[in-house]
Amino acid sequence: MATQATPRVFIETLGESASTEVVLKGWVYRLRILGKTAFLILRDCTGEAQCVLAAEALRKHRLKAEDVVEVRGTPRPESRAKAGCEVHVSAIRVLNRAASNLPFLSSHGLESVGLETVLQYRPLALRTDSVGDIFRVQAALLAAFRQALDRRHFTEIVTSKIVGGGTEGGTNLFAIDYFDRVAYLAQSPQFYKEHGVAGFERVYETGHVYRAEPHASSRHLTEYYSLDLEVGFIDGPEEVIQLERELLTEMFEMLNSRFGPALLKYRSERLPSMLDVPCWEFAECLERLREAFGRSDLTEDLDPQAERQLCELARESAGIPAVFVLGFPLSARPFYTAPRGIAGAANSFDLLFEGIEITTGGQRLHRRQDLEAALRARSIDPIGFESHLAIFDLGMPPHGGLAIGLERLTCQAMGLPNVRQAALYPRDRYRLAP
Amino acid sequence: MATQATPRVFIETLGESASTEVVLKGWVYRLRILGKTAFLILRDCTGEAQCVLAAEALRKHRLKAEDVVEVRGTPRPESRAKAGCEVHVSAIRVLNRAASNLPFLSSHGLESVGLETVLQYRPLALRTDSVGDIFRVQAALLAAFRQALDRRHFTEIVTSKIVGGGTEGGTNLFAIDYFDRVAYLAQSPQFYKEHGVAGFERVYETGHVYRAEPHASSRHLTEYYSLDLEVGFIDGPEEVIQLERELLTEMFEMLNSRFGPALLKYRSERLPSMLDVPCWEFAECLERLREAFGRSDLTEDLDPQAERQLCELARESAGIPAVFVLGFPLSARPFYTAPRGIAGAANSFDLLFEGIEITTGGQRLHRRQDLEAALRARSIDPIGFESHLAIFDLGMPPHGGLAIGLERLTCQAMGLPNVRQAALYPRDRYRLAP
Repeated sequence: MATQATPRVFIETLGESASTEVVLKGWVYRLRILGKTAFLILRDCTGEAQCVLAAEALRKHRLKAEDVVEVRGTPRPESRAKAGCEVHVSAIRVLNRAASNLPFLSSHGLESVGLETVLQYRPLALRTDSVGDIFRVQAALLAAFRQALDRRHFTEIVTSKIVGGGTEGGTNLFAIDYFDRVAYLAQSPQFYKEHGVAGFERVYETGHVYRAEPHASSRHLTEYYSLDLEVGFIDGPEEVIQLERELLTEMFEMLNSRFGPALLKYRSERLPSMLDVPCWEFAECLERLREAFGRSDLTEDLDPQAERQLCELARESAGIPAVFVLGFPLSARPFYTAPRGIAGAANSFDLLFEGIEITTGGQRLHRRQDLEAALRARSIDPIGFESHLAIFDLGMPPHGGLAIGLERLTCQAMGLPNVRQAALYPRDRYRLAP
Repeated sequence: MATQATPRVFIETLGESASTEVVLKGWVYRLRILGKTAFLILRDCTGEAQCVLAAEALRKHRLKAEDVVEVRGTPRPESRAKAGCEVHVSAIRVLNRAASNLPFLSSHGLESVGLETVLQYRPLALRTDSVGDIFRVQAALLAAFRQALDRRHFTEIVTSKIVGGGTEGGTNLFAIDYFDRVAYLAQSPQFYKEHGVAGFERVYETGHVYRAEPHASSRHLTEYYSLDLEVGFIDGPEEVIQLERELLTEMFEMLNSRFGPALLKYRSERLPSMLDVPCWEFAECLERLREAFGRSDLTEDLDPQAERQLCELARESAGIPAVFVLGFPLSARPFYTAPRGIAGAANSFDLLFEGIEITTGGQRLHRRQDLEAALRARSIDPIGFESHLAIFDLGMPPHGGLAIGLERLTCQAMGLPNVRQAALYPRDRYRLAP
């Protein structure tokens, strides 16, 4: 069959080709037979088209859902069809067959399909609306993050994930056999993005980070994708917080405009503007939790329940289920954290959004002697960090930054309960495949 | 000094603030004293500004190059200054001092500075034009790659870099201690991007890949950044080749328009349109090399010299120092490579550009039985690849793709001889830090 001469047309542009023979390629999404006529819903990466053919042809080709086909036909206006036209098929060719014993079909809902099956059959799940939307939204979040920062004079950097040691003292690191040495997978691009500030003033990186954490919760992965930024010449962590308010607002506006109706299938309301997200001191948070929920058990950190409770309180008082918590105890934060002036508090913050922490950020120490003192205060010999500390001799501006977990952010945008749903190939204590 | 009230202004917008007091922040780039007047060239991430102050103030603050400062002053029109105005300084504040024994200064040329020193002092090097341009160009290449694919219905994916085994049979893999098991760093997202095609039809990923190759050449890194794409419903590798012609042309046009004058400092001509890059069969290449250079030593693969020679021949015959070489011997390519029909040839290609291979790509096998046969032909038991092969039961379109090494592409765009110059923190057999 000489189908090569006619170039393939994407379904979204079908309307431009009315009454001209076209070639479509895609997956059989649904089939329906009405007497001697058959209707084949074909999907490609741009949309779906209703194709009309003789029921006989369908049987002859033994077509079934998920088969990969090339369809030659002519689009005719048809107001009842999604694309505004339907395609009258003149020839059909099977490019590759799907197996006949698939665990689910892309046109089915996945409500009764377990996460294990979804993960094992990822490509088939991507062809469903509900799982496909997760990763289209994720890609859009990534693009919006980068664009918002490009507009603000940030430069994207790419830094090594193979490092000689950890940024936070050596726990929870995955070891690599690096020729005749041991190396580690980077827990964060923290040091490198600070170095980036010393060079470019404003930098960001989107990339994997690794935590060898043995617990398997619905919130943790051993490998996740971090949206990192670091910005120089700040006067305090409030500037980083304000930047994140604007950044997330732009990202969410883009999601609302590109995926608005789809998002409302997964969450009860549109994504909010983040411009008015309040910022509460850590001590104030403990006080509010005590008053509103009788929580008197928290002293050094928040727990998942407290994160949910604070988001409730923020919704009541500010109308947005999100809050920046600023001024965590310094002792619980990494050595490079700048102090908040108040005794024992750190200039670092978390952003809680709809019940879960999606960002950690703050101002960092920018003077070598302060970093050395902070290390010594933790009984760490600064000599082990000399190659990092040396960078602070090169002209280091006051700076701060943040890291957003992409999978968690995707979960919150899509109303997903388990972070594994927002990682194409999640990794945890027990999961190495597919 | 109450400098908090006036918000900081970026240097590139100085012209909008003529005669209004502003606050600038940045690095001391250069200092010059003329009698009682001093000129301080200040740099931030948007440009450089000439600041005028009393020589006495300069001495009082002991200012020197690379110090981090805040400058308060009033811009006055001055046609001889780069920004069209100069800033008359009313106050200056040192935010952080650079050390006084730096190995080079950002205003100096780096011609006499060795690569080791550049790598060790990366942030300082980024503040120079020549090294800063490398990574600004690299960031722009990344952005242009993604944008060109976003416009073509591709979806960005993020796939795991921790895998249970290699895509090409298990050689040159870095092993990771993964709890009580051994895992490996991914050599390529090959399998995952093919899975992506089965879900989304067109996918791309920008991310690290890892090769435990012990040789240390000017072209190889153990960790590099790969621009990967995979596209479904192709009729042959020529479609992937045509896509790359268009893609690189768009990327290069963007570089020419954003960095044109800067690029000509590093390369002798503008980046070419790639639309007319010829495509030669591997056998034809050997023939051309024999005729033009008397090379009779090549049979199964090209060597670096042959890559340079082919680019010369392409420049002579097509006016562009670039050529796609299609139809390498199948035996030298991974098992998933589709055959080219011609006995023993593969539907895979390399793109050689200005003397070096910057892309490998091709059409892949898309039928499970063909993949199983290909594995058996290499004496590999398909059972070891079952979780990958199972994906081919889900409705896999004919497909192909390519991978561009970002560091090599950056080198070629900037005329750099060593790939380490185009990696912020290069990793090789001996290099793990900084």
